[in-house]
Amino acid sequence: MASLARITLKSRSAHRALPRALSGQVRRLHETAKRVPFRWEDPLDLESQLSEEEITIRDTARDFCREYLAPRVLHAHRSEDFDNSVLPAMGAIGLLGPTIQGYGCAGVNYVSYGLIAREIESVDSGYRSTASVQSSLVMHPINTFGTDAQKQKYLPALAKGELIGCFGLTEPNHGSDPAGMDTIAEETDGGFVIRGSKTWITNAPVADVFIIWARCKWDGKVRGFILEKARRKFPNGLQGLTAPRINNKLALRASTTGSIFMDDVHVPGDALMPGAVGLGAAFSCLNSARYGISWGVMGALESCLALARKYALERHQFNRPLASFQLVQKKLADAHTEVALGLQTSLRVGRLRDAGRATPEMISIVKRNNCGKALGHARVLLDILGGNATADEYHIGRHVANLQVTNTYEGTYPQDIHTLILGRAITGIQAFT
Amino acid sequence: MASLARITLKSRSAHRALPRALSGQVRRLHETAKRVPFRWEDPLDLESQLSEEEITIRDTARDFCREYLAPRVLHAHRSEDFDNSVLPAMGAIGLLGPTIQGYGCAGVNYVSYGLIAREIESVDSGYRSTASVQSSLVMHPINTFGTDAQKQKYLPALAKGELIGCFGLTEPNHGSDPAGMDTIAEETDGGFVIRGSKTWITNAPVADVFIIWARCKWDGKVRGFILEKARRKFPNGLQGLTAPRINNKLALRASTTGSIFMDDVHVPGDALMPGAVGLGAAFSCLNSARYGISWGVMGALESCLALARKYALERHQFNRPLASFQLVQKKLADAHTEVALGLQTSLRVGRLRDAGRATPEMISIVKRNNCGKALGHARVLLDILGGNATADEYHIGRHVANLQVTNTYEGTYPQDIHTLILGRAITGIQAFT
Amino acid sequence: MASLARITLKSRSAHRALPRALSGQVRRLHETAKRVPFRWEDPLDLESQLSEEEITIRDTARDFCREYLAPRVLHAHRSEDFDNSVLPAMGAIGLLGPTIQGYGCAGVNYVSYGLIAREIESVDSGYRSTASVQSSLVMHPINTFGTDAQKQKYLPALAKGELIGCFGLTEPNHGSDPAGMDTIAEETDGGFVIRGSKTWITNAPVADVFIIWARCKWDGKVRGFILEKARRKFPNGLQGLTAPRINNKLALRASTTGSIFMDDVHVPGDALMPGAVGLGAAFSCLNSARYGISWGVMGALESCLALARKYALERHQFNRPLASFQLVQKKLADAHTEVALGLQTSLRVGRLRDAGRATPEMISIVKRNNCGKALGHARVLLDILGGNATADEYHIGRHVANLQVTNTYEGTYPQDIHTLILGRAITGIQAFT
Amino acid sequence: MASLARITLKSRSAHRALPRALSGQVRRLHETAKRVPFRWEDPLDLESQLSEEEITIRDTARDFCREYLAPRVLHAHRSEDFDNSVLPAMGAIGLLGPTIQGYGCAGVNYVSYGLIAREIESVDSGYRSTASVQSSLVMHPINTFGTDAQKQKYLPALAKGELIGCFGLTEPNHGSDPAGMDTIAEETDGGFVIRGSKTWITNAPVADVFIIWARCKWDGKVRGFILEKARRKFPNGLQGLTAPRINNKLALRASTTGSIFMDDVHVPGDALMPGAVGLGAAFSCLNSARYGISWGVMGALESCLALARKYALERHQFNRPLASFQLVQKKLADAHTEVALGLQTSLRVGRLRDAGRATPEMISIVKRNNCGKALGHARVLLDILGGNATADEYHIGRHVANLQVTNTYEGTYPQDIHTLILGRAITGIQAFT
Repeated sequence: MASLARITLKSRSAHRALPRALSGQVRRLHETAKRVPFRWEDPLDLESQLSEEEITIRDTARDFCREYLAPRVLHAHRSEDFDNSVLPAMGAIGLLGPTIQGYGCAGVNYVSYGLIAREIESVDSGYRSTASVQSSLVMHPINTFGTDAQKQKYLPALAKGELIGCFGLTEPNHGSDPAGMDTIAEETDGGFVIRGSKTWITNAPVADVFIIWARCKWDGKVRGFILEKARRKFPNGLQGLTAPRINNKLALRASTTGSIFMDDVHVPGDALMPGAVGLGAAFSCLNSARYGISWGVMGALESCLALARKYALERHQFNRPLASFQLVQKKLADAHTEVALGLQTSLRVGRLRDAGRATPEMISIVKRNNCGKALGHARVLLDILGGNATADEYHIGRHVANLQVTNTYEGTYPQDIHTLILGRAITGIQAFT
Repeated sequence: MASLARITLKSRSAHRALPRALSGQVRRLHETAKRVPFRWEDPLDLESQLSEEEITIRDTARDFCREYLAPRVLHAHRSEDFDNSVLPAMGAIGLLGPTIQGYGCAGVNYVSYGLIAREIESVDSGYRSTASVQSSLVMHPINTFGTDAQKQKYLPALAKGELIGCFGLTEPNHGSDPAGMDTIAEETDGGFVIRGSKTWITNAPVADVFIIWARCKWDGKVRGFILEKARRKFPNGLQGLTAPRINNKLALRASTTGSIFMDDVHVPGDALMPGAVGLGAAFSCLNSARYGISWGVMGALESCLALARKYALERHQFNRPLASFQLVQKKLADAHTEVALGLQTSLRVGRLRDAGRATPEMISIVKRNNCGKALGHARVLLDILGGNATADEYHIGRHVANLQVTNTYEGTYPQDIHTLILGRAITGIQAFT
Repeated sequence: MASLARITLKSRSAHRALPRALSGQVRRLHETAKRVPFRWEDPLDLESQLSEEEITIRDTARDFCREYLAPRVLHAHRSEDFDNSVLPAMGAIGLLGPTIQGYGCAGVNYVSYGLIAREIESVDSGYRSTASVQSSLVMHPINTFGTDAQKQKYLPALAKGELIGCFGLTEPNHGSDPAGMDTIAEETDGGFVIRGSKTWITNAPVADVFIIWARCKWDGKVRGFILEKARRKFPNGLQGLTAPRINNKLALRASTTGSIFMDDVHVPGDALMPGAVGLGAAFSCLNSARYGISWGVMGALESCLALARKYALERHQFNRPLASFQLVQKKLADAHTEVALGLQTSLRVGRLRDAGRATPEMISIVKRNNCGKALGHARVLLDILGGNATADEYHIGRHVANLQVTNTYEGTYPQDIHTLILGRAITGIQAFT
Repeated sequence: MASLARITLKSRSAHRALPRALSGQVRRLHETAKRVPFRWEDPLDLESQLSEEEITIRDTARDFCREYLAPRVLHAHRSEDFDNSVLPAMGAIGLLGPTIQGYGCAGVNYVSYGLIAREIESVDSGYRSTASVQSSLVMHPINTFGTDAQKQKYLPALAKGELIGCFGLTEPNHGSDPAGMDTIAEETDGGFVIRGSKTWITNAPVADVFIIWARCKWDGKVRGFILEKARRKFPNGLQGLTAPRINNKLALRASTTGSIFMDDVHVPGDALMPGAVGLGAAFSCLNSARYGISWGVMGALESCLALARKYALERHQFNRPLASFQLVQKKLADAHTEVALGLQTSLRVGRLRDAGRATPEMISIVKRNNCGKALGHARVLLDILGGNATADEYHIGRHVANLQVTNTYEGTYPQDIHTLILGRAITGIQAFT
């Protein structure tokens, strides 16, 4: 059996072969202080794992969220009115489709995309949903599966928020099972006729551009189409395409949601995205969105933690701050640990994604974990507020309602399905059907 | 407000300044395959985050654990006999005090130390406890707080496993509160008299070298002493020092545990470790041990997961493998996610520790989280075995019993105290007293 | 040691002494069928434990709730408008102050009171809150602590819902700690001056009758007063008493909530309830309310279970009903068991209360348990709805938001305090201060 | 809509028709004290719900368990030796087959049977398992399905503990799915030949009487047989029947467990129990046992609670008793509530069973709930012991190991299967196959 002594001896040369920069870094750090201060706001020192560019992007998004979104969120949630200024404002600083190269997009990496999602969702999951749909579910498929003409036509305006997009995959009877899709596309002269319906579609009531997935009669395959709604930018948009709003939502009220009805909609031939063939194409969009959600929900939980901590420090009962109660400290500590782990894991998956090595299973792990933990711990933190939990000025209750939805949504994959996706990855056996 | 477009423009130069190797790596990876395979055994690709040296060390430890420890563990657990060959065998390949430079030690980094703990505990937490005590609680304080003479005298033999050490901090009435220590040291001619008792001391019944913490009468401070037991290597060891064994333990039966009684033990002046002043010195040892435990328990949970998965695939009920049950897949998927997160976090803390930037709070986070999750999920996995859970050949039940202890131990800090340590770090308020 | 054989021999005579009716019942039942059908809606056969009168009362309340309340609840929740017709409608069939003898009240037992609360809260916790306040927190103290004149003046109109009452105990800075009360009463010519404020007071914005607890300057004791608001029935009501509404609540939107400000309110001498001395008097009201809540929340959970079950049976995914998924069945089965246990325990406490033997600790047990379990399982059931969880037509989301509040409210005692009340009962040690 | 006022008016006569004794009781209790003391040991006043006979039986069992079993349990668990004196000692005071009328059995009701199980398991689940098997799985089927001759031959000796019985249903490859049974019975001259094997059979290594379930070749039905082992009372017992012991169990070490091998065992014709036809017959035995387990595990949890409470009151940390920590009080309060609910529910099911109205689903509810809660909370209570959790003198660790088994066992039905049984009862859909 080999001895570590020999290994380390042997590996001295290997060690010498490590990038100089890295071993220099190790040496420098060993020389520094004994007692590093612990910052509860960044328990595993995420900051030092980000590049300067990433930090600048994060700070830009943070400033925007605090200055622009935070003051609007209470009204948005109370009134359930969609604020048309939000997407253009996001677009103006480059938050839409940020990972796309060219077409007026920022071209940042996926870690940066995650950092942006975290900042937006620290204000509200509804704002993050609106942005996720635009970026991951509309711009991403156009960029990945579309023609040059399609990219040129749509991406710059989508990046600016001048056009709003939505993603029509989920159907009324096939929430978690898009393979059972009932929406049909048929070939006609110079184009297609599409009929069917979609539901729970974020942005649909205000969208100009509809990414619609339909089963093609001629070969049975699912394909993605770009449909233009007859509104705003497209006065001559399609006939038969309606997108009524779903009102009285219990959560994500800062975003708007609707159904899509397609009553023999005649779409031109160039509406088809050539690369968007098969459910795998649709799923790759969801995958991208879910990666962002894994960061976003951690932002929401971080907000809840900071709010609950502040409340517990300021509020006194029995002549001492709530924060001095063991039962309150446990609630804070439990949430705090999950934030630390969740962000570290999202960062890891982001780095792998930027390196082209992130698999869908990895995204299932971090999406399922982070959504579940964010929801679970936000609920516990809400209890710290006591009676004030009911007041929307304290924000945590709104996050709790929102996080319940992020835990189950993304078009098709509620939490149980992610469990079974991971179960299949671990055991090789598929257990949903 | 700044735009990301401008940021990225501006940061192009920063980006260009990144180490060439790294950006090369990114490029190479972007060029490679679309669909990277997912390996359930390494869900976040820990492997690619390790250096060659670390991988070699891990593999060496793994081989040793599989070839040497695994075949012994059932007998050790059943009989509760301490196997005197284990520490020398570990020492022979460099697993003891591995982070120490010189004195025959391997001089590896803390990530490697963690990887070793993970491998040992994948067999049994008792073996890992024995090794942790020797490395983190005996060799570490001698190396950190001892004189050159003390290091020369003890470290080489401890590294070889020729001497066995133990760490006497916990007292019968002060399990979580060492500040209440009753063991007293007084000055005498040319040395000290120590009286008091310690309990739940791993390795004590077989130890030659006792690291004893006592309150010094002359100034009220706690200090660390090295006491030699009159056995084996020290035929002229100290009078009045006894270490009776605690039998019939319900867990960690592969390690041995005892009390320590010191009945006016006269120790020579050179037994005092000059740097070991104050409880902070004792806690720094525990901190080191706890960091290793955070890796170790993940090793145990990984074992449970692999064993439960194998069982679920092989065992059929209702004419299909247990692994095809949704309720079984959920148990596997939940454990699997926690392994992924726990290891990623231990790695992060290890890198920070190697860089001199890990704080005790970070270690509290990862120790508390990993122990709690390992225990919780090992228990759930045990249920997959059904009636066979009771058979020790299936191993998971033994891990469950062991992990219950790792969740509460390390001399002084049960899980609730870690909760309150984190609570204090988050709120600034101490809630234990 | 005695033998059971001898015991049973000896106790034959005791057995013979058992009430004839009961042993007849046993015999009759033994003779009946082998295989009794299991009804999932009533898993432990609660029905057979109720008297005919109790069943009739329950059915009356159920009909009212289904016919009158259920059709109104969506509008009430969406608009947050208080429906003035609800309390009179409840009063018309005897649901207000139902345990009071005389004064136009129904005079039923506490089990019946619980059954009523369960029916109302099966529609909405807000409706139940409105009724609980009227019955347990307004009519109960007037009946228990008031003069004959006070009872004659207020109870009949409160019973009819012609007057609305509220209960002012909780203060802005003393949510869980009413002993710190800042509201002060001073003696003046022929009466008292009261100053202070209260918050999170159910019914306050629409109340005519305010039960106000204030610390009396002359002896430091807390006492309860009946204040008349200058509205509706009391055109000459008190000056300086205002009760502004708290808007934009996240839950319990079918009830209305406000603050109470008392700016040197001069109240006549006959406003004092002579028996309402000490916080114990106030707590006895909360105790009564909490007993009712323990039934109410089980009603809400039963509704969620029935709704989720129906949804899971009707909704198909992967070509089979959701209800056929093991992971869905587990959610249903877990909730179902807690309903069974919670109702059985509420019934037990109700029987003890009717027998004068229920202690506050028993009520803490069943309130804490039932609220916590109702909330926890309603949340799990909500996930069965997938994306539809967000639609208020499916009701479960509204129950979840409501139950979060019932878990922490009742003026002064959030869940953690109940934990510590029980901790004190078990250990004899008080741990809140 | 009917008014409660009218209802109560109408039901006055119904009320008058209630049994006089009962309404007298109500009146008497109303007259008694305001403030009834709360006894933490009996939080919902179980005592007053028991008859004098039941209390006497419970006290007899309690005395026996404290005086006879408790002093033996540490040795039994450590040594894993089966104590041959235990069953005769139980038999001597009537604890075996206690619900059977005649044959020297006590003839008590099922509530009493539950009370006995609770007392025995408050000492150790292994002792309770031994007794459960003898009573519910051996004497019960002989009494229910056997001939008069079989009853006369076996029941008196089994009741005295002179014969030991075991129940052979579970097979190595069909733990949860006895429908897949491989053991076969064929007709021969004047009897049957049985071949096959069984595993995890409590009492098998020391049993004289084996209740064996086999699939009968002639019609495919499963039937129950009584086999006599060639030992002790049956020197001329059957050839080919062996029952080797399973050693090194991790739990239930006070009971003994084995496999059964039947190598062409020739059994006489009168070994067949005429009524024991079909798996339903076997399941009715398990049902009876599971009912008892629901009481038993609550006894174990009560023990853990009392032990942890005592420890927390006596043990000081930071100069105050552990019991004064909020985090410790929460652990105690949570367990305490589940004991209260679990016992109340077992009592309810017992009363229904005595009335012939308990269904298997009701028993699934209370078995699954009580086992799950007992295990979960015993584990939490164990943590209160800190390092002493490992010492078997503190008992809780042993209960935890035992309860893990009770949570999954009873021959065929692990916890997940109970979940799905209840799922089927609730939804009408069977989800195991």
